[in-house]
Amino acid sequence: MSSGKHLAKGSTPPVLGNDGKLRLYSMRFCPYAQRVHLILDAKKIPYHTIYINLSEKPEWYFEKNPLGKVPALEVPGKSNVTLYESLVVADYIEEAYPDKQRKLYPADAFQKAQDRILIERFNGLVISPYYRIMFSSDGIPPGAITEFGTGLDVFEKELKTRATPYFGGDKPGMLDYMIWPWCERVDLLKFVLGDKYELDKERFGKLLQWRDLMEKDEAVKKSFLSTESHTKFLQSRKAGENNYDCVSNAKKFRIA
Amino acid sequence: MSSGKHLAKGSTPPVLGNDGKLRLYSMRFCPYAQRVHLILDAKKIPYHTIYINLSEKPEWYFEKNPLGKVPALEVPGKSNVTLYESLVVADYIEEAYPDKQRKLYPADAFQKAQDRILIERFNGLVISPYYRIMFSSDGIPPGAITEFGTGLDVFEKELKTRATPYFGGDKPGMLDYMIWPWCERVDLLKFVLGDKYELDKERFGKLLQWRDLMEKDEAVKKSFLSTESHTKFLQSRKAGENNYDCVSNAKKFRIA
Repeated sequence: MSSGKHLAKGSTPPVLGNDGKLRLYSMRFCPYAQRVHLILDAKKIPYHTIYINLSEKPEWYFEKNPLGKVPALEVPGKSNVTLYESLVVADYIEEAYPDKQRKLYPADAFQKAQDRILIERFNGLVISPYYRIMFSSDGIPPGAITEFGTGLDVFEKELKTRATPYFGGDKPGMLDYMIWPWCERVDLLKFVLGDKYELDKERFGKLLQWRDLMEKDEAVKKSFLSTESHTKFLQSRKAGENNYDCVSNAKKFRIA
Repeated sequence: MSSGKHLAKGSTPPVLGNDGKLRLYSMRFCPYAQRVHLILDAKKIPYHTIYINLSEKPEWYFEKNPLGKVPALEVPGKSNVTLYESLVVADYIEEAYPDKQRKLYPADAFQKAQDRILIERFNGLVISPYYRIMFSSDGIPPGAITEFGTGLDVFEKELKTRATPYFGGDKPGMLDYMIWPWCERVDLLKFVLGDKYELDKERFGKLLQWRDLMEKDEAVKKSFLSTESHTKFLQSRKAGENNYDCVSNAKKFRIA
């Protein structure tokens, strides 16, 4: 892992040597980048993290990824072309490292497709209303909170039907990790909805149990940030400052 | 294949017997459904097509797919749960039928990921401006035509770099088939932009050659509709009529 400082315009590309490790270009608070951290950490694949300041992108970063986006994954020996799009990168890692101890998709193609459908649906069902609640410029759009709850209902019901602690069974799988970053951030809704906002313990009983278990997962712990830390960044973001390095050290204490 | 008539509210579910074939719920003019036809036809997998009237959906269809969407794929022995989301279904077919003569993804995981990135990017780069040009209620949004061309530039450049007739090499692959439905419909832009609209032969030289080749592909021919047929449906759609069956017979002649 890197020092945690986000590299900005005017920086020089990190010198990492030819150690054959993957390089993940990331941003500490980006939930899409976190998806890739989770997969690499779950499969215990060693990698370097290079944090990118997304407001002031380093000039050299566009040579790594012409779109300037994170996450982007650099694979040794692949001539400076990075892979991006979080779900594609996650699937790539799963396919390129089949010998690693953890398989994250079900072995059966039909079940795998069902998980991938839920990952796709999470976008519209949960992520989309979440961002509309959090970042709409003129107040919370009508219906967005109801929509967010109805979206989570689908996953509550799914977990009940599967009758396993995780969507992946006895251990978290691809579906668990792909939806986790936004679940880690659910309590951020308090930032806009007030302290009394809370997920209903009856309605979301299974999901809340799942969340408690996920927080104890070794891979989740590696990229986990508390609601307090997420709030700190959110405040800086809303103030137009994007203080990417506001919790770098806090994170180190958390992991230890 | 079915008779081509789109089943509507009040219809009874088709009786197909237990012949072990896949069943594809589709709509004749839906480009997302066409993606799945293309993959099944390219891999020469036998299947039934059941066309659904999307304006007046059959009551029974919601038992097949609670979301009422097409495409949806019913796999024999999988207790009435359908798979949906065109890209997930296409990937499922590729994985579930590995023994079929045609492999549609590159064998190398990195190259496969690169193709999947381009499939994802096609959404924002081409499909999104295409729909904004075709269906914006108050005229063509400024910049949409430029954006559409810039999006196609990415694929023109890619084909030039690959220096192969198809994105998949000597034969069409997953990327070719996943972007094809909108390429088949490019000349529909004349419907809103006027007859003088045409893809620049210099700027899109490779893509136009590719389009000519694709039209001759056996799998493409099976679901292909002429611009005239697409226009017919588009006119009925713009008139609020959605005449799904307007070319069922025309199609039969075309295949024969």
